[in-house]
Amino acid sequence: MSNLAVTVYKIGGGIIDDAAELTKFLGLLAQTTGPKILVHGGGKGASAMMRELGLTPTMVNGRRVTDAATLDIVVMFYAGKTNKEVVANLQRLGVNALGLSGADGNVIEGVKRPVKEVDFGFVGDLTPASVNKNLIISLLQGGITPVLCPIIHDGQGQLLNTNADTIASAVAVALAPDAEVTLHYCFEKNGVLRDVNDDNSVIPDIDATRYEELKTQGVIADGMLPKLENAFAALHQGVSRVIIGHALHINSELRTVLCLK
Amino acid sequence: MSNLAVTVYKIGGGIIDDAAELTKFLGLLAQTTGPKILVHGGGKGASAMMRELGLTPTMVNGRRVTDAATLDIVVMFYAGKTNKEVVANLQRLGVNALGLSGADGNVIEGVKRPVKEVDFGFVGDLTPASVNKNLIISLLQGGITPVLCPIIHDGQGQLLNTNADTIASAVAVALAPDAEVTLHYCFEKNGVLRDVNDDNSVIPDIDATRYEELKTQGVIADGMLPKLENAFAALHQGVSRVIIGHALHINSELRTVLCLK
Repeated sequence: MSNLAVTVYKIGGGIIDDAAELTKFLGLLAQTTGPKILVHGGGKGASAMMRELGLTPTMVNGRRVTDAATLDIVVMFYAGKTNKEVVANLQRLGVNALGLSGADGNVIEGVKRPVKEVDFGFVGDLTPASVNKNLIISLLQGGITPVLCPIIHDGQGQLLNTNADTIASAVAVALAPDAEVTLHYCFEKNGVLRDVNDDNSVIPDIDATRYEELKTQGVIADGMLPKLENAFAALHQGVSRVIIGHALHINSELRTVLCLK
Repeated sequence: MSNLAVTVYKIGGGIIDDAAELTKFLGLLAQTTGPKILVHGGGKGASAMMRELGLTPTMVNGRRVTDAATLDIVVMFYAGKTNKEVVANLQRLGVNALGLSGADGNVIEGVKRPVKEVDFGFVGDLTPASVNKNLIISLLQGGITPVLCPIIHDGQGQLLNTNADTIASAVAVALAPDAEVTLHYCFEKNGVLRDVNDDNSVIPDIDATRYEELKTQGVIADGMLPKLENAFAALHQGVSRVIIGHALHINSELRTVLCLK
């Protein structure tokens, strides 16, 4: 397995909610060569359906409070509609995609988040042992592209809502002992920007030293800070490189590449 | 592969709609030994949600007319909620289940039903080449129990609603050249009954000759007739035996076993 090189792509709600952009992204993804994994987030469809059904979506610090009725809806949306539409479209493009929740093949088993100041309900946290890398490697070796949705399970029959960024990072880290792993975060900007208002000010490369400088200078702040902290955490756990860029530029050089050195 | 023996279990809407009975069934399934596949139907949840959303479910000859809005709901219910709840519960019971729609790994590719007297919309029909048996065999060899929902795709990016009985039969037939296949239809009666009003009048064994006699005698009629026609069609295509019985008696001798001779 030491010559396996795999890229873990993560797409978020913004692109899931834009059918035309999602189609373009999947077309670009189909043009990439080599083994890959796609992790997708949720999007606004679940909240819209909840409102239609008279339920009130509740978010705390950007995370969805997931009671039993909410869990039903997010499982239906993320593991059902979104996951299967993405898989069917990748199949159309010649990519042998296979959709997975964490329960499928026990690929990601987590724990229900403990109640502290906030009771998030049926929300799952991952542990270092959460990812069943053997199934993922076996699928990749069979020419299959796993498509992971942000629903996991606790091994006791309970499905749990979780976060696509967390899943992408955990999968990348779990595969790192067996493969050269690139973790590719797609979002709505062209990369890490020197000037947050100028999408052309992409910083092409950031290593650990440069990262400390950029933090000290205040170039990296606000929403970008936790994203990059997570990226460097993955690098410190064996991921070879992390790419941050726009979903529609995955095959271009317009992006930020993060490495330890 | 010639020494592979596999059982394809099919459960329908009745048991899907009864959480307590479904839990009991899954417990019994977990006690069965050997490679197995579970195919599940839909249940009434999708129709109930459609009504909550102001949509009107339409059935013709027992089949759901599936417009785009209906397809969204059935994909969410069958491939999302039902499939993942079944998989998570089997994982709890120590069965390494993995849920699949037909799009996943291109496991079942069908065609949209042609419009004749009725336009069924996004409803899929299977062809003799629909089932990708290699993926199924590979999963079974890896100790995985595939759990199939009645959603397939057309290979052109379109998901299609189909019928769990049809999927179970097609999967059983596709595996027959490589394995000794038992197709086990679970339903609400104890088997094929001599007297439809007496659930204790189960006919334990029916071969092709006996089947013709029972038809001539009028013992097999009405709803049972298409079920047994399909069963014998599967036997004629290489399936070793078909079992028809109650979902909560899968491990008992109370059931009807169908063989060619």
